Amino acid sequence: MKSALPKVLHEVAGKAMVQHVVDAAGSLNADNTVVVYGHGGDQVQATVTGNNLQWAEQAEQLGTGHAVAQAMPSVKEDIVLVLYGDVPLIRPETLRDFVECVDDKTLALMTLTLDDPNGYGRIVRDGQNNVQRIVEQKDATENELGIQEINTGILACTRSFLADCLPKLSSNNAQGEYYLTDVIAMAVQSGLTVETLQPQFAWEVDGVNDRVQLSRLERIFQLAQAESLMRDGVTLRDPARLDIRGSVQIASDVIIDVNVILEGDVTIEEGVTIGPNCILRDANIGAGTVVEANSLIDGSVVGDNCTIGPYARLRPGTELADKAKIGNFVETKKSYVGEGSKVNHLTYIGDSQIGKGVNVGAGTITCNYDGVNKFQTILKDGAFIGSNSSLVAPVTIGENATVGAGSTVTKDVDDNGLAVARGQQRNVANWKRPTKK
Amino acid sequence: MKSALPKVLHEVAGKAMVQHVVDAAGSLNADNTVVVYGHGGDQVQATVTGNNLQWAEQAEQLGTGHAVAQAMPSVKEDIVLVLYGDVPLIRPETLRDFVECVDDKTLALMTLTLDDPNGYGRIVRDGQNNVQRIVEQKDATENELGIQEINTGILACTRSFLADCLPKLSSNNAQGEYYLTDVIAMAVQSGLTVETLQPQFAWEVDGVNDRVQLSRLERIFQLAQAESLMRDGVTLRDPARLDIRGSVQIASDVIIDVNVILEGDVTIEEGVTIGPNCILRDANIGAGTVVEANSLIDGSVVGDNCTIGPYARLRPGTELADKAKIGNFVETKKSYVGEGSKVNHLTYIGDSQIGKGVNVGAGTITCNYDGVNKFQTILKDGAFIGSNSSLVAPVTIGENATVGAGSTVTKDVDDNGLAVARGQQRNVANWKRPTKK
Amino acid sequence: MKSALPKVLHEVAGKAMVQHVVDAAGSLNADNTVVVYGHGGDQVQATVTGNNLQWAEQAEQLGTGHAVAQAMPSVKEDIVLVLYGDVPLIRPETLRDFVECVDDKTLALMTLTLDDPNGYGRIVRDGQNNVQRIVEQKDATENELGIQEINTGILACTRSFLADCLPKLSSNNAQGEYYLTDVIAMAVQSGLTVETLQPQFAWEVDGVNDRVQLSRLERIFQLAQAESLMRDGVTLRDPARLDIRGSVQIASDVIIDVNVILEGDVTIEEGVTIGPNCILRDANIGAGTVVEANSLIDGSVVGDNCTIGPYARLRPGTELADKAKIGNFVETKKSYVGEGSKVNHLTYIGDSQIGKGVNVGAGTITCNYDGVNKFQTILKDGAFIGSNSSLVAPVTIGENATVGAGSTVTKDVDDNGLAVARGQQRNVANWKRPTKK
Repeated sequence: MKSALPKVLHEVAGKAMVQHVVDAAGSLNADNTVVVYGHGGDQVQATVTGNNLQWAEQAEQLGTGHAVAQAMPSVKEDIVLVLYGDVPLIRPETLRDFVECVDDKTLALMTLTLDDPNGYGRIVRDGQNNVQRIVEQKDATENELGIQEINTGILACTRSFLADCLPKLSSNNAQGEYYLTDVIAMAVQSGLTVETLQPQFAWEVDGVNDRVQLSRLERIFQLAQAESLMRDGVTLRDPARLDIRGSVQIASDVIIDVNVILEGDVTIEEGVTIGPNCILRDANIGAGTVVEANSLIDGSVVGDNCTIGPYARLRPGTELADKAKIGNFVETKKSYVGEGSKVNHLTYIGDSQIGKGVNVGAGTITCNYDGVNKFQTILKDGAFIGSNSSLVAPVTIGENATVGAGSTVTKDVDDNGLAVARGQQRNVANWKRPTKK
Repeated sequence: MKSALPKVLHEVAGKAMVQHVVDAAGSLNADNTVVVYGHGGDQVQATVTGNNLQWAEQAEQLGTGHAVAQAMPSVKEDIVLVLYGDVPLIRPETLRDFVECVDDKTLALMTLTLDDPNGYGRIVRDGQNNVQRIVEQKDATENELGIQEINTGILACTRSFLADCLPKLSSNNAQGEYYLTDVIAMAVQSGLTVETLQPQFAWEVDGVNDRVQLSRLERIFQLAQAESLMRDGVTLRDPARLDIRGSVQIASDVIIDVNVILEGDVTIEEGVTIGPNCILRDANIGAGTVVEANSLIDGSVVGDNCTIGPYARLRPGTELADKAKIGNFVETKKSYVGEGSKVNHLTYIGDSQIGKGVNVGAGTITCNYDGVNKFQTILKDGAFIGSNSSLVAPVTIGENATVGAGSTVTKDVDDNGLAVARGQQRNVANWKRPTKK
Repeated sequence: MKSALPKVLHEVAGKAMVQHVVDAAGSLNADNTVVVYGHGGDQVQATVTGNNLQWAEQAEQLGTGHAVAQAMPSVKEDIVLVLYGDVPLIRPETLRDFVECVDDKTLALMTLTLDDPNGYGRIVRDGQNNVQRIVEQKDATENELGIQEINTGILACTRSFLADCLPKLSSNNAQGEYYLTDVIAMAVQSGLTVETLQPQFAWEVDGVNDRVQLSRLERIFQLAQAESLMRDGVTLRDPARLDIRGSVQIASDVIIDVNVILEGDVTIEEGVTIGPNCILRDANIGAGTVVEANSLIDGSVVGDNCTIGPYARLRPGTELADKAKIGNFVETKKSYVGEGSKVNHLTYIGDSQIGKGVNVGAGTITCNYDGVNKFQTILKDGAFIGSNSSLVAPVTIGENATVGAGSTVTKDVDDNGLAVARGQQRNVANWKRPTKK
């Protein structure tokens, strides 16, 4: 990967590859999941989370069989499923079916049939179609090279069988490594049946060895997510230009325009339209809301039938009541905007509580920070804030109160009151303009 | 579609599928076009428009033959062309050629030759290559399954022939429906010739049954539009990242960068450059103008050799004279900006008339709204508006007049005059800063 | 091309096609490079640059042989390499290997093996696999049409051989043109060996005759650049949505999100993250810096561990020290921002020198322009500028000095001082709001 980051921490769809695998494993509700780490163990342990997660160090890189052996002392379940941190996209559904194949007499092996099996270990079967062994590319006969079913490396079997086998693995091979693959031949010798299962999608068992492969898997996974959304009733203007990095819940008849990114936990209710180039991160968007182009919504809750953007930025802690409107070049942060209130242009709203039916004029700035402390601005229902005003917090503008345009308001304004705070206009006739210096 | 919206109202390239079909049909200038609707008829009728459009309800969904029968009483032309609301992209050119095939002795059937005809009705021809009948997949012999020419469902014939046939259709089949397809066999029996025509592009007869197909058709159509533009002399940096949703007129030597969207009626004159991520909706852009990245132009007329953006938003009613310049984080609305005038940064211009050679400083806000009324701001030729000014409308700044930076201007300024309206500066030495609370 | 621009000036990856060719030729360090021009010679000469570049006019378009003949009087090297201005992507590595094939007894011909050779001249070889001649499509026998190796037109040979041949070319053919291709037959006749070489990538010898082909080559080249970056340790979220138009140096573990454009000379140091929809032009980005979505950095130098954007625009002459922060809807120009200083929201910073640890509040505008002159604003270390302030340059705010929110500052502020410059607030009780007019 040419990277300071351990390979398995490189991300697909915004999540470390190994975390994908841990999450898929976790979906089986096993007693525990053991992650074997080698290089960069600290980084991996600091990043990966999961229920009943345990760690096993593989100090020397002596092969896959050796890696699994490090995990064995920690394994609690009677059945062991072996997955790979750089094969990130195996689906829980596939694993569920796979593990169900295993019993005392059966080892499960995940295989794949490829048009071009070149380079992979082939699955050799006997006349009854039973798996006999795996032959590596370099050891294969001409006939065996013609086999298109390949070994993915993913297997599941009883813990007791695996505990028997692992000590018997030999590193007497060109690489000097202990290969987990050799367990298959041992299973056949022991009279076990090797049952094979193929994933529904080939990409579930695709591994990543460089960033070209990483990007390929990213796009495959994104397209799969996009197609799944479309089948659930979401309209995508271009499925190839949607990126989902997290967990989304999107109701039907939502329309998502091109080049949108959804990150973290995103919930979008019915009939919402998301314009082009928008980014939503940890956001809830209420029914019927329109998010116009180039908007960025982060850590925010948006009510029904709101209008946001274009070029709006909602930062964490923003909450919009129904029918609120946030317009262009407006930034909000840790603020509540009441029902039907409008903040339409070139405004900064921070640490504010805005009531219903408030109109905040263009260029308004809530001055919430004195260099060390942050203070609140309160705009009560029906307040009208003239354009280009500065509201110096802490300050409260009363119900239906008005602030004249261009004012710097430092003192509270009573309900129904007017505040004006600006210099007197002085006109000078026939003014001589500056000249070029 | 998993949708509250009738299928035929789902959009391709920003237009309801059925509207595409009505427009294509309308291009033939027939005496009338009859739209048969079932579910959601109100929504369909509220959306679809066209010349000489009539409506026929199909209360029960009893098949395509039954649907056409509902339309027959309204049909005025001697020749009837049957199209489908979910087959949106049939081209007028194709329809024109198709309808010309029809006469008293000839029925026209649109067919398509597919590499994989699986699932479609096949066109069975006799030794003289004459169409004999259509055989559905499930009824086809091994030989017939090998036929690659399939029925698209689109046909045209005389009204009198169709009026004869429709009552004879039977619903004595598995689905209990009246199939229009059966008309073909009747035509052959009646001694009519069935002439077939294939569309130039397979996508012209692609139907939509889910949102995956919808998105596929969207992209195919967008690529076709992009290629057509390139052949007309427009440079596209990435044809796969252009979306046209409407009707565009683009002169030669226009350069369009990646991820641009054109909506509604857009005219772009020679030598214009449109930067990445721009959205133009109902806009005219004069020759030689440069629209920089991330700009949004809506309902606006832009002169020649203007510079717009990046991050400029022109809202409806904006008109720019030649060589005007609208810069970053600037919003304009219902305003005229004269020749060579500049509004370069962080400004809101609403309901304004700006003359020639005006300079509007950064952060200027026209305060055009008092909460109930909107007022005009007039900046005459050569006016210079200092930065961060608030212009409280109605207000006029005279020719070559100057407004000092940071002023809130509420009264008119004479030609050549200066207005300053700001507080006196008070300096306090050794000020004690706030401390952490 | 349907263009007022000569074909060879149309751009791939932001550079004129012929400039790509001149640069590739220039990489060989030949004594000179001769560009033959026909139509639009002035435009071509005004655009194309290179070391030891010379020009030769081909007044009449009499074929490729004639074109090369115009160049011959200017050629200084003993070996001549013939390239084409509309075959832009030939790689220097390929040319180096190619030219090395040439000696007194050997002419080098670049060929390509195509699945579909239709339309191209085929390479006819004898029983010893030696090239005998090139046969054009229309003159080819059935057997010859089956040949998949085609002529790319690119050749290299000694100047003396070429000088001998060119006068012997005949225009006695359908087009009445002198074909350079005929040189191959002459070479064989003269007893020269014709050595062939194929480029590593087919696109190296792709020619452009219309804008569809131009866009195809653009995308192929962009993907090739993207893949090369990934192999060097850069993570790309979508290689199909990256555009590089210039010369980039990107360290490992840089992450580039979707829809990014890099133009001109761009250097990005280790661990940088570039958000979606960003545009970097002639920029240096220091290690660990995060550029958030929708930012535009032009002609700027950014230190380590800075945070930029979203929606930030750095214009030419911006220099950020380490850990500086430029936030949303902020524009900077010809300004220095010191270590750890923050300009977070809705601000214009022009012609400014900002020290360390400075905080510039939301909505601040440096008023640097009086209509004819530009002036400097200086904010010394630790200054705190209250929100919505106007700083009227020339002006200096001293060390640790404070400007009150909403102030228009026209006079310098001493170190540790406070400046307030705003109107007194006047509150009016029970104000009667405007009514609808």
